[in-house]
Amino acid sequence: MYDLIILGSGPAGLAAAIYAQRARLHFVVLEKEPMSGGQIINTDAVDNYPGMPGINGFDLAMKLREHAESLGASFVCDEVVRIEDMAGDVKTVVGREGEYRTRTLILATGATHRKLGVPGEEALAGRGISYCAVCDGAFFRNQVTAVVGGGDVAVEDAVFLSRICRKVYLIHRRDELRAAASLQEQVKERDNVEILWNTVVTEIRGKEAVEELRIASVPRHRELQAAACEEAQRENVLQVDGVFAAVGIVPNSQLFAGVKLDEGGYVVADETGRTSCPGVFAAGDVRTKPLRQIITAASDGANAVASAERYLSAQG
Amino acid sequence: MYDLIILGSGPAGLAAAIYAQRARLHFVVLEKEPMSGGQIINTDAVDNYPGMPGINGFDLAMKLREHAESLGASFVCDEVVRIEDMAGDVKTVVGREGEYRTRTLILATGATHRKLGVPGEEALAGRGISYCAVCDGAFFRNQVTAVVGGGDVAVEDAVFLSRICRKVYLIHRRDELRAAASLQEQVKERDNVEILWNTVVTEIRGKEAVEELRIASVPRHRELQAAACEEAQRENVLQVDGVFAAVGIVPNSQLFAGVKLDEGGYVVADETGRTSCPGVFAAGDVRTKPLRQIITAASDGANAVASAERYLSAQG
Repeated sequence: MYDLIILGSGPAGLAAAIYAQRARLHFVVLEKEPMSGGQIINTDAVDNYPGMPGINGFDLAMKLREHAESLGASFVCDEVVRIEDMAGDVKTVVGREGEYRTRTLILATGATHRKLGVPGEEALAGRGISYCAVCDGAFFRNQVTAVVGGGDVAVEDAVFLSRICRKVYLIHRRDELRAAASLQEQVKERDNVEILWNTVVTEIRGKEAVEELRIASVPRHRELQAAACEEAQRENVLQVDGVFAAVGIVPNSQLFAGVKLDEGGYVVADETGRTSCPGVFAAGDVRTKPLRQIITAASDGANAVASAERYLSAQG
Repeated sequence: MYDLIILGSGPAGLAAAIYAQRARLHFVVLEKEPMSGGQIINTDAVDNYPGMPGINGFDLAMKLREHAESLGASFVCDEVVRIEDMAGDVKTVVGREGEYRTRTLILATGATHRKLGVPGEEALAGRGISYCAVCDGAFFRNQVTAVVGGGDVAVEDAVFLSRICRKVYLIHRRDELRAAASLQEQVKERDNVEILWNTVVTEIRGKEAVEELRIASVPRHRELQAAACEEAQRENVLQVDGVFAAVGIVPNSQLFAGVKLDEGGYVVADETGRTSCPGVFAAGDVRTKPLRQIITAASDGANAVASAERYLSAQG
């Protein structure tokens, strides 16, 4: 019987492990893969974790993990299949390898990439379609690729790929990027990046692997959209060797039906991490929050442990 | 005219500077002393900033500052004397050296040590009474000192001083410490630290410098308190060369009468940093929050900038 089980070993889960170990709770971190870090392990250069300018995401993940391990935190690699008695005094986490009983839970399972949801995406998966430029960019040396999206990740990916590929299209459905201004400056300085504004991908085509994208422009005025789209879809085809989707994230909350989720599937919790279930706390990208960043995820991990400690003390 | 002025350069202010620079806001950090870091520069070993186990507080402060400077953030050393038109579209910060006009403000002025509030404390200030063991501990080599408090800082101070002093008393008014369990273990392992439970300091005495403390025990049962205290105060005197007060913090919010403060003087704000004044955001120890730590302060800095960006965009 544990005091605490931490689900997930991204920045939120690892920060929680550091704080839980300092609090001398009897706890374990369950991670579904033997590699900690969550989304950050696929980030080329992290420039906004205060104190570590420009650190590689994988290196930062290793530093967080080593910190937790140096204090004595223990990790178990197991994939959770369900959680029983989530609202009870004793909660049971059922994994593929074993069952774990605990008085409190920290949900720190993060989020994963959103799919484009267009024809061809499933059929050509792994054959020119990627959701991680840092993982797969090297396969496209001197080739032509497209990045879809307009946020930090999309722009980072375009900058990263521009050093590898002959030509990179950045396809964004709006007329301005959401990414940090500093990232926008970087991408606009790259001669081999072409930004296609007000544009969406409507289909991915290819025989053995990705060969071309059908794209359509999104007119600003709604009344023109129907006609323009038809025109665009007939005409605009982009020859590419690969496409990188960076169109946002979806929370990994599929197993958490026992707590209140918002319409996007995020676990409803404020900065204390408290969820609708007593003794269950949420930290990092999986919870409702104003800003999803490594530093805010790490802060959530600390807060969730403090809340779990308070709950355990009150229970006696 | 600035987009943003950040007041304070502790972890919250420095994280805000990193994020504001990435957002390419036109901003400046005002700091009252030429040394960034706030309270952390006086911390011997920080073990809970994820990714940097055991880092010295001063070194961490320098790393945060260097990160902000490497991105191009600018700092001005000036002491703020008042803030005008805090609720207006343009706010004016009046310092000793100049006036600064801005559309948004991040209050990240942190907190300072609380005084013991006992006779002798004012008269012997700087002559054996300290609020910072790391700053002043070295003056008490092989001497006898007392630390007053029971939280993380008090226990860290006692452990730190035990390596320098012949004998260290840890004086705590309750029968258990609030500090993290790992710190409690460390202090209990030190042979030359004696914990005086349920004890308060009632007076600090000395001619030229601190010579002795009058202490009183705090009985558990209220009905016994009056008699016991009188007895204790007549009898218990502790010979010490120095006393270190670590009895909590008070927020540096004296200049912020324009925003809503809680009864403890903290600026009322949730994790977004939004205060009762439009365009004014609070980050770090100065705001109402569940857990005051370096990591949560840094997270606040990021959140406050995101909120300021949103406010500026909405204002156009």
